[in-house]
Amino acid sequence: MSAPAQYGSVTPEVVRLLAGIAGEANVLTGETRTDYAHDEAPNFPPVLPDVVVKPPDTASVAAVLRMADERRIPVTPRGAGTGLSGGAVPTLGGIVLSLERMNRVIEIDAANFVATVEPGVVLGDLHKAVEAQGLYYPLYPGELTASIGGNVATNAGGMRAVRYGVTRNFVLGLEAVLPGGEVIETGGKYFKCSTGYDLTQLIAGSEGTLAVITRILLRLIAPPGRRDIVLVPFDSLQRAIDVVPKVLREGILPVGIEFIDKDVAGLVDRYRGKEIPLRGFEAFLMIILEAESDEAMQAQAARLGDICLEHGAIDVLVATGDRARDMMDFREKAWPAIAHAGNAELIDVVVPRSRIADLVRQVMDASRQRGITMYTVGHAGDGNIHFAPLVPDAPDAKQRVKGLFREVYRLGVAMGGTISGEHGIGGAKREYLDIAVPAAKLALMRRLKAAFDPRGIMNPGKVF
Amino acid sequence: MSAPAQYGSVTPEVVRLLAGIAGEANVLTGETRTDYAHDEAPNFPPVLPDVVVKPPDTASVAAVLRMADERRIPVTPRGAGTGLSGGAVPTLGGIVLSLERMNRVIEIDAANFVATVEPGVVLGDLHKAVEAQGLYYPLYPGELTASIGGNVATNAGGMRAVRYGVTRNFVLGLEAVLPGGEVIETGGKYFKCSTGYDLTQLIAGSEGTLAVITRILLRLIAPPGRRDIVLVPFDSLQRAIDVVPKVLREGILPVGIEFIDKDVAGLVDRYRGKEIPLRGFEAFLMIILEAESDEAMQAQAARLGDICLEHGAIDVLVATGDRARDMMDFREKAWPAIAHAGNAELIDVVVPRSRIADLVRQVMDASRQRGITMYTVGHAGDGNIHFAPLVPDAPDAKQRVKGLFREVYRLGVAMGGTISGEHGIGGAKREYLDIAVPAAKLALMRRLKAAFDPRGIMNPGKVF
Repeated sequence: MSAPAQYGSVTPEVVRLLAGIAGEANVLTGETRTDYAHDEAPNFPPVLPDVVVKPPDTASVAAVLRMADERRIPVTPRGAGTGLSGGAVPTLGGIVLSLERMNRVIEIDAANFVATVEPGVVLGDLHKAVEAQGLYYPLYPGELTASIGGNVATNAGGMRAVRYGVTRNFVLGLEAVLPGGEVIETGGKYFKCSTGYDLTQLIAGSEGTLAVITRILLRLIAPPGRRDIVLVPFDSLQRAIDVVPKVLREGILPVGIEFIDKDVAGLVDRYRGKEIPLRGFEAFLMIILEAESDEAMQAQAARLGDICLEHGAIDVLVATGDRARDMMDFREKAWPAIAHAGNAELIDVVVPRSRIADLVRQVMDASRQRGITMYTVGHAGDGNIHFAPLVPDAPDAKQRVKGLFREVYRLGVAMGGTISGEHGIGGAKREYLDIAVPAAKLALMRRLKAAFDPRGIMNPGKVF
Repeated sequence: MSAPAQYGSVTPEVVRLLAGIAGEANVLTGETRTDYAHDEAPNFPPVLPDVVVKPPDTASVAAVLRMADERRIPVTPRGAGTGLSGGAVPTLGGIVLSLERMNRVIEIDAANFVATVEPGVVLGDLHKAVEAQGLYYPLYPGELTASIGGNVATNAGGMRAVRYGVTRNFVLGLEAVLPGGEVIETGGKYFKCSTGYDLTQLIAGSEGTLAVITRILLRLIAPPGRRDIVLVPFDSLQRAIDVVPKVLREGILPVGIEFIDKDVAGLVDRYRGKEIPLRGFEAFLMIILEAESDEAMQAQAARLGDICLEHGAIDVLVATGDRARDMMDFREKAWPAIAHAGNAELIDVVVPRSRIADLVRQVMDASRQRGITMYTVGHAGDGNIHFAPLVPDAPDAKQRVKGLFREVYRLGVAMGGTISGEHGIGGAKREYLDIAVPAAKLALMRRLKAAFDPRGIMNPGKVF
C-alpha cells in the first residue's frame, strides 16, 4: 500500500532533517530498513518504511514529529517489534520512529515504589533493574525482549493478570509527544488523582495512534516470596472453567490460571521432546500461585487442591522450583509449538470468563465445519483465549480463514466479549473492528484521535 | 451566575418536554429545587437550577440530552449530592439531571465477579447487595450515602486505596449517553482489553463534563476474612511517614495507612466526647489490615509491629472488633470535628508519599505566617493529604484563604503531586487548575471535551 496523495513524501530534504535531529548514523534509508518492515504478527505483509529514525531523547522525538506534522508524513512508532498485530508495520510507508535508543532505566524510586523508564527498555532489563532494588514489576506478557513502551502502547496482558491486571494498571504516568511536537506529562508518582481527564489511560493502549510515549512511570510492588504452579487435570474443559470462580470465592487469588487442552499439550510435548507428567485429561489448569512464605504457600496450595478435587479434578500436582519453571516453559512453548505444526494464525479474543468453555466448543465446531485445524490455549482466570487456526494449503485458504476469524469474533462479542484482549488491533485486526465497536463509538474514537492528531500522521492504517 | 447568551433557556416548552420524558412528578420547578442547588463543598455558593429532571432509565436520559443539546441548555448530572468540590452545582443554571431514580442493582454476576448497577445506587446499598452474594466491593471513599455514579464520575478514592486503588480501578465498563443522545457501551465483564481507546477510563473521573453515566460494571473480589487496625504513635510525622515504604517492602500490603496528628486527634476526641488510648505522640498511623484468617492476621500484625518499633514507633496497639470499628469512627469524624471547630475549607492535594511530611511542614509554616489555623489529616500510604484551613473572621479572609490555597497547590505540584487526589476539581477548584495542568495539556483536554460535547452543554463551568 502506498501513501495516499494527501500525505507528504520522504524527500532527501526530510532525510537530511532527520539526520540533523538524530545524527546520520541513526537514520536508515538502505537495506537495513527491512528489519523495520514487520513485527511478529503471523502472515501480516511487511511494508518497507521510507526512512527509519532512532531519536536519542524526547527533544529529538518532538523535533521529528514537528517536522513530520508540518509535511504530513506518516510516523509509525516502534518498540522492540515483538507485537503480534502488525502495529509497528509502517502501513503507509513514511517514517518508522524507533525508540530502541531510548532505553534507559532513569530511576527506581524505592521510597515511592515507582520506576521511571524510557520506552525502549526491554522487559527483561526492567525486571532486572527493579529486582536489584528489592522491588518487583509483576507483569509478564510472555516476551522478555518486548519493550515496555510497546507493552504500554498495546496494553499488554499476559499470564499474571488474574492477580495483577494488565499493563495499564501499572502505568502511573507518561511523558508523551503530541504530533505537533508538544510534550505533555500525565499522572505522577501517585495513584490517586481526580484532576482532569485521565490522559495516561487514554494514551496507554492507543497503539501509537495518538502520541509517542517517551517516558513511563510504573508502579512497583514488593516481591513475592515464592511462586509455585499447581497442575489440575480435568475430563472436560467445562469442568476446568467452572472451578475458577469457586477457587476465587475462597479468597485464593492466583497470579494466573491458564488452560491447556490435550491437543495443544500433545503438540508442546512433541515440540519440547519430553512429556509432562499428566495423563488421561481433556484439559488441565495451570494455576500459578504466589505466597510470602513457604507455610502460606503450602496452606494455599492445599486449600486450592481440595477445592479442585471437590469439583471434579482428576488429580492435583504441585510443581515447585525447577519443575515449576519447566511448566512455565511448557506454557510459553504453546504458541511456538503450534506455529511449528503449520502456518498458524493467531486470534486473541476475550469473553467473560464463565463463557470460555462455550466459546471454545462453538469455535471448535465452526472450525471443523470449515475443515480448518484449530488449536486453543488461554487464560482461564481472565477470559482471554487464543485460537490458532492452521491456514490450510488450499487456493481459497485466505478467505476461509478470514470467514472463521469473523465468526470467532462474532461469537466472542455475542457472549459479551471483545476482539482483542492483549495483542491490540494494529493493522492485522482492524478489518474486524466493526464487529466489536459499533458506529457511534467508533465515530467518538475517531474524534478523540483527531483531537490528538488532526493531520492523521500517527500510525495511520492502524486500529481504525 | 446566569447563563451566557449563547446558551438556551429553560422555557415552559422545555419543562413540558421534560415532563413528557420523565413524567410530571419527576420534573421540579418549584421550591424543592433548592435541594439541588448545592452539594457538600464547603463555602461553595449554591446556584438554583432552572429545572430538575429525574429520568427513570437510559432512554429518558438520552431524550433529555438530545433535547438539551438541540437547544444548547446546560445539563448538570447529579448523583447523591455528597461531592466536596461543587461538581453537582448547576453553575450556569439550566437542567439538573438527577440520577436518583436510576438506583437498581441490575445483577451480581457471581461467576464473573461483576456487579452491574445503575448510577444512582448508593454505596451502602451496593455493599449490601454484593455481600449478600458472598462477594465484596472493597472501595470505601468514606460516605455510604454517596452514589456509585458520583464515585465513578469523580474517581473517588478513600481509605482503602493502598491495597485496592481508586474507583476507576474497579470500573470494568460503562453505559453512557453522549450529549446528542447517543448511547455507547464501553468495556465489559473482562479486564483484559486492547480493542481501541479506553473510553471507560476517560469517562471515569470526568465529573459529568463528557457524558452521563447510566450503567456501571464493577469488578468484585472475594471478601476479606478479617479486618483489624493497628495504631502506631510516633514522636514526629516524618518518622511516621518514613516507616511506610519499610512496611510495604516487607510484603505487608495494608488496606490503608492513615495519619493523624495530635491537633486533629484532640479535636476529634473533644467532638466525640471520649479519648483514644494513645498518649505522648506528635502523629500516629492507623494501619488497616485485612487477612483471610485469624492466624494470618496475627502473623501480619506482629511483623508490622516489629517493623514499626524498629523504626522509631513509640508503641504499637492492635484494635480488633468493636475497638477497630471505633477507631474507624474516630478517623471518619476527623472532617466533621474540624468543620465543627470553625468555618473550615477543604484541600485535597496528592504528592508522592515520601513527600508527605515535607508538604505538611511547609504548609503548616505557610499557614502560621498567614495567621490561618490549619488542620491536616490524610492517607499516608498513598500521598493524598487533606488540609483544612479555618477561614478567619476578618474582612480579607477570602483572599487570604485563596492565597493559601494557591500556595498549598504550588507546593504540592512542585513536589511532583497534583491538586486533587479524590474530590475532583468541580466548580470549587477550577480556578487553581492552571497550577497543575500546563497550557498544552489543558488545550488537549478541551479538545477531548469538544470531541464528546461540541456544544458545551455537559456540566459547563466545571473542571476547566
